[in-house]
Amino acid sequence: MRRTAALILIGNEILSGRTRDDNIQFLATRLGELGIPLREIRVIPDIRETIVETVTELRARFDEVFTTGGIGPTHDDITAPCMAEAFGVPWEFHPATFKLLEDFFGAEKFNAARQRMAKLPRGATPIPNSVSVAPGFTIGNVHVMAGVPRIMRSMFEALAPSLKQGAPVFSRTWYTPSLYEGTLAEGLEAIQDKFPDLDLGSYPFHREDGRRGVALVAKGQDKAEVEAAAQAIYDLLKEKGGAPVEGEPPP
Amino acid sequence: MRRTAALILIGNEILSGRTRDDNIQFLATRLGELGIPLREIRVIPDIRETIVETVTELRARFDEVFTTGGIGPTHDDITAPCMAEAFGVPWEFHPATFKLLEDFFGAEKFNAARQRMAKLPRGATPIPNSVSVAPGFTIGNVHVMAGVPRIMRSMFEALAPSLKQGAPVFSRTWYTPSLYEGTLAEGLEAIQDKFPDLDLGSYPFHREDGRRGVALVAKGQDKAEVEAAAQAIYDLLKEKGGAPVEGEPPP
Repeated sequence: MRRTAALILIGNEILSGRTRDDNIQFLATRLGELGIPLREIRVIPDIRETIVETVTELRARFDEVFTTGGIGPTHDDITAPCMAEAFGVPWEFHPATFKLLEDFFGAEKFNAARQRMAKLPRGATPIPNSVSVAPGFTIGNVHVMAGVPRIMRSMFEALAPSLKQGAPVFSRTWYTPSLYEGTLAEGLEAIQDKFPDLDLGSYPFHREDGRRGVALVAKGQDKAEVEAAAQAIYDLLKEKGGAPVEGEPPP
Repeated sequence: MRRTAALILIGNEILSGRTRDDNIQFLATRLGELGIPLREIRVIPDIRETIVETVTELRARFDEVFTTGGIGPTHDDITAPCMAEAFGVPWEFHPATFKLLEDFFGAEKFNAARQRMAKLPRGATPIPNSVSVAPGFTIGNVHVMAGVPRIMRSMFEALAPSLKQGAPVFSRTWYTPSLYEGTLAEGLEAIQDKFPDLDLGSYPFHREDGRRGVALVAKGQDKAEVEAAAQAIYDLLKEKGGAPVEGEPPP
């Protein structure tokens, strides 16, 4: 069974270059392992219309949608009210989340900004995490997580057992130095034609110190097909005079 | 003058988790410096319909669109024909690019796969680069670049002088350990209300070794306003008992 996921990173810090993303690769890898491969990623600013339109579009196109960012206490944290708007439900205090936050901060420090974090879309289910009280939640097929990587990862692992998994994806990689894509393209296309259900990827590398070459990846849900394609890739690399090494090229 | 940019990363390697993106932060930073801030990023697979629809939508919504990936010689390199389709023009041999590639590879190694790289959308202008013969090009407001970071950067710098710049964005950052967003949210919102044209960002950090705190960023095109808001941020951090330090928190 094929299942698909999309990811929305909400916030200005990636778009401005301030922060280097540290969430995409983790989620892409974990979702692949769960058989819910990531098919699209969007990075969008903290703008209400953009958030509402993006989530409305993607939740209709993909089985699961994950978001990160915008669930803190500041004026630019608007993910929760935007999700309420996208689902056409009220944004209201969630009693269990209110109590969790009140107990954590203590009555005196539980000010208006922090109380605002206890408001969720009606019908949302909180996503717990072990490292903070950040209020992640699931509504429909949309999973709203924190942007801070440690917190996001904890939320994702709390969520993972409840996600409906697809068939796992198998992958085999060969790389070779000194051969280039142009030499391999024709042979690789012939392998792709023989295994139309697999994703065959060709990834040139070109390091600062001058090392160059190409990595070829076979990916798919049928393990025997992936193995057969990997063998064909090995044979192609040998035929073209390469020195195939299993795995990813060193950085 | 406000100008805007969008970025499309084309290819499966980021979506599968195979590769950690190494292009976004560079482009976000450089576009900010040129006064053409990045407003949206999409990561999409090598699927014809998806590429054509995405570029058609984004080139209408933003002043400049940059793409990376999919311009090599293999079967999954389909960015150039997709751009031709999006612009409704033929995808055809570009004589100068053909000659450049033929001279580089030599007639014997200039096989069909490599010749395919010499086909561009009609009306495209090549983007040169100093580290390879990868065939980047501009068509309309869309700039098609390589996915390999070194080549992409060289293409971007070749392109930069010809981009119409907007007003540069100024930025000041303070961080403080031991204060959290919830303590600062109300004061920060008051500063945002006073400077509605600025982007005030609040970025909590939470390191593996337990260091926590928050960074506050004021950004905008009016330098005096940015300075005034930075002073107000400093005053807020002092008032709340913080120890403000200029700049980004250490990793």
